[in-house]
Amino acid sequence: MRLVRYGEAGAEKPGLLDGEGAIRDLSAHLSDIDGAALAPSMLATLAALDPASLPKVEGNPRFGSAIARPGKFICVGLNYADHAKETGKEPPAEPILFAKASNAICGPNDDVEIPRGSEKIDWEVELGVVIGTRAKYVSEAEALDHVAGYVLVNDVSERAFQSERGGQWTKGKSHDTFGPVGPWLATKDEIADIANIDLWLDVDGERRQTGNTRTMIFGVATLVSYISQFMTLEPGDIIATGTPPGVGLGMKPPVFLKPGQVVTLGATGLGEQRQRMVQA
Amino acid sequence: MRLVRYGEAGAEKPGLLDGEGAIRDLSAHLSDIDGAALAPSMLATLAALDPASLPKVEGNPRFGSAIARPGKFICVGLNYADHAKETGKEPPAEPILFAKASNAICGPNDDVEIPRGSEKIDWEVELGVVIGTRAKYVSEAEALDHVAGYVLVNDVSERAFQSERGGQWTKGKSHDTFGPVGPWLATKDEIADIANIDLWLDVDGERRQTGNTRTMIFGVATLVSYISQFMTLEPGDIIATGTPPGVGLGMKPPVFLKPGQVVTLGATGLGEQRQRMVQA
Repeated sequence: MRLVRYGEAGAEKPGLLDGEGAIRDLSAHLSDIDGAALAPSMLATLAALDPASLPKVEGNPRFGSAIARPGKFICVGLNYADHAKETGKEPPAEPILFAKASNAICGPNDDVEIPRGSEKIDWEVELGVVIGTRAKYVSEAEALDHVAGYVLVNDVSERAFQSERGGQWTKGKSHDTFGPVGPWLATKDEIADIANIDLWLDVDGERRQTGNTRTMIFGVATLVSYISQFMTLEPGDIIATGTPPGVGLGMKPPVFLKPGQVVTLGATGLGEQRQRMVQA
Repeated sequence: MRLVRYGEAGAEKPGLLDGEGAIRDLSAHLSDIDGAALAPSMLATLAALDPASLPKVEGNPRFGSAIARPGKFICVGLNYADHAKETGKEPPAEPILFAKASNAICGPNDDVEIPRGSEKIDWEVELGVVIGTRAKYVSEAEALDHVAGYVLVNDVSERAFQSERGGQWTKGKSHDTFGPVGPWLATKDEIADIANIDLWLDVDGERRQTGNTRTMIFGVATLVSYISQFMTLEPGDIIATGTPPGVGLGMKPPVFLKPGQVVTLGATGLGEQRQRMVQA
């Protein structure tokens, strides 16, 4: 299934995309696409529905984040071998984890706010993992049993706030709209091979990032297991798994986003996003 | 008012402490002590109630976290001049911010889990600030208008996970039970001078931390204003404002907690906590 949240910000309704890509409303079956909606029993109930029996949503409503605001939005740093190389850093010996504040989450096509005083806004196309069931001290072998599905994420970053303002990255990762998520949550069964997802990102139509999850240093099962050693993962939590090469900070000289510029990005099976930069 | 959440974990009810320190049930007036409960209009409604008219709770129920799980649990690092000195570091030029995962929050007297493989569990008594109304780009002058009240926090930390596993601190701050909060939320009017709060912490009855918020490098209004430049603070969010001297990491040689040890801590006007260390 491809699950969506559609409608005005703060008043999104749950839906799914049918075979033609039309939104079918799920409001009669659940209140939101949140942690509770991702329980295996609820996903099975939804999968048993005939999309044609659900109300078809007319027009082109806004997409909200494909998952309601989670308890945690955990990000993995430097997780692509080719991206680590472009930053000039050694690949990490174990995953680097940091947190994005949950207020950063927004719809996939919402405007992205450039914070006041910001001069180093950067882009990061990423595969997002959405947790379906509680995971604490889970092994790699059982890790994927705790995953409900996958989403496209842009881990928008302010590089000066991230790295020149005290050392902890949260400050540069948490502004409102720094976490576009969606357009849809693809349940696990939709993705044939999570280690073979193409990722791309353009700025004003010019290709900046090209990658594939096969060059991830730590794969999805490893990440879920690893993170569960440090904190309990809960239904609806998002893990942004790191970005492939081509970020603005890695260009020579570095290039950052300005108001009015447009970022588009996509991933195999996970749809596309489009964000316009606006001044906060 | 002193607002509490009481009862079994996951099934806490809202209450307030009357003049004798007895719990009075607030279930007829609101469902939980959460962000919505802290809106100025709701606090005014609660303040107008006669505690004697509310059902008195018999026995000695468990206290839950004084505030329901927030969207954000932001912590400030090295924010006491005397604590910065004991770590051998220069006082920071601006606040250091990091995030604790919200799953870390627990009741003030719950057992604290020592994670598997952990050998460096440390304590940090802190003043916690609870946000009452949305704060984005607020000035220092208006910052306190966005604060609903204050809580006692133990910012439990695993120093090896925090500093020896990749550099970002979140990993060492986010295990379940690493964030005891309470026993009560003191509304702003309860605290005569937030810049003159005594803080103390004992391990097995031996005094380890003694401090006062007057040695904070960045005060509460400064912190709220500062953080609001990087992320939007929302009702119910907690800011742990840093710890005074006396943490285990600062002792020579460093001392860390073992299973069975008991930590007690307190702060002027914010009550006391007691946690027993248990192996996860």
